Amino acid sequence: MKRIRMTVAYDGTNYNGWQIQPNGVTIEGVLNQHLSQLLKEEIQVIGASRTDSGVHALCNIAVFDTNARMPGEKISYALNQRLPEDIRIRKSEEVKPDWHPRKTESIKTYEYRIWNEEFPNPIKRLYTHFTYLSMDLEKMRKAAEFLEGEHDFKSFCSVNSQAETTVRTIHRIEVEKEGQEIVIRVSGNGFLYNMVRILAGTLMEVGCGRRTPESMTEILEAKDRSAAGPTAPAKGLTLVSYQFF
Amino acid sequence: MKRIRMTVAYDGTNYNGWQIQPNGVTIEGVLNQHLSQLLKEEIQVIGASRTDSGVHALCNIAVFDTNARMPGEKISYALNQRLPEDIRIRKSEEVKPDWHPRKTESIKTYEYRIWNEEFPNPIKRLYTHFTYLSMDLEKMRKAAEFLEGEHDFKSFCSVNSQAETTVRTIHRIEVEKEGQEIVIRVSGNGFLYNMVRILAGTLMEVGCGRRTPESMTEILEAKDRSAAGPTAPAKGLTLVSYQFF
Repeated sequence: MKRIRMTVAYDGTNYNGWQIQPNGVTIEGVLNQHLSQLLKEEIQVIGASRTDSGVHALCNIAVFDTNARMPGEKISYALNQRLPEDIRIRKSEEVKPDWHPRKTESIKTYEYRIWNEEFPNPIKRLYTHFTYLSMDLEKMRKAAEFLEGEHDFKSFCSVNSQAETTVRTIHRIEVEKEGQEIVIRVSGNGFLYNMVRILAGTLMEVGCGRRTPESMTEILEAKDRSAAGPTAPAKGLTLVSYQFF
Repeated sequence: MKRIRMTVAYDGTNYNGWQIQPNGVTIEGVLNQHLSQLLKEEIQVIGASRTDSGVHALCNIAVFDTNARMPGEKISYALNQRLPEDIRIRKSEEVKPDWHPRKTESIKTYEYRIWNEEFPNPIKRLYTHFTYLSMDLEKMRKAAEFLEGEHDFKSFCSVNSQAETTVRTIHRIEVEKEGQEIVIRVSGNGFLYNMVRILAGTLMEVGCGRRTPESMTEILEAKDRSAAGPTAPAKGLTLVSYQFF
């Protein structure tokens, strides 16, 4: 028996998120199905991030145990032959039998992308959230500074979350312009349910002048979801990197 | 009667190209259908570039004549309400009644995008052509220099073209790296059928060492399609800008 870790990239457009569920096609479900066929035994992957419906990833992590003799690093090539084009295994490798992606300290980085022009761009529509409202990036950056560090992010967490604690550490929030795209890049040791999308929705309200950068302090203190801005749409969000320690 | 010019962006993935045809959905067909419904008269657009199936555009041009009273600059907003999300009108305006997009001198710019990494990126798969072969950009740039200027591009034209002359002027070919993407940006006064895709396919062969930069001269002199490289896949190609004089 050996444990295999895979780095998985996917376009979330056509999936009901990562986590397997009774109705709808999920990334986890598709991986289990094709791995089981490939390795001729029942495979159950464990994901590092259970991304929501419509969210994309360049590097989610999945581990599983197998008795198959196929070398760990070959599995990616064999599995990619079977997977649909919108899921790719970028790497597979053997890890220690007790390595667990959700029990290992990590830094995750998400990017939230906003297409900011008078009209949406058809070739970016599946990977960006569109707004024609003009955005003040300096104000967004100033607001972001209030959110960096260790805080109780209860106000930035969807009410149906079951997290034990709502304290998290955001290492960094960058707000950048790339052509007509605004990129909000958030790194942290872990995120609450919908946290990055609520951060993005709130920073957008700062960007268009509906909130002040300083009001971030009040939102954090409120510890109440209704104090923060809206949850920005899933399609703008991509899990871009994962570092384990 | 007035003539309206529209700037049209589209994701070509789900269309059988620009030009209307008996079977399959085309950009031209969808524009005619929705404009006719909107303006309550039969509308026939004329396109500047009849892009192939799967090719994208940020700024193709369509003109049409109408008796409708709706001001030219309002048509874009009204039409975008009706169009599918993968087609957007970026601008509409009244032009002189004799203005014709294919009879006006212009410079068109196309970008051909290549995803160059060990594995394809699912969220780029519809807008880039993938290769894991390592590419020497300096050699590609050197080859591109031989192709700039006025030449007979017969070798870079699909055999089923009906063009009267195969002489064209390429103003510029840039080869750039953007992250893991290689961008081949080609500007010219007009292009033959499949010309940019054959240029891209040939430059990729130079990039991976299968041809020399100097061999471009022989290809041009051969005036024979079989002397050039393969036609690179449509999905990597986007019409990015149009300038009229």
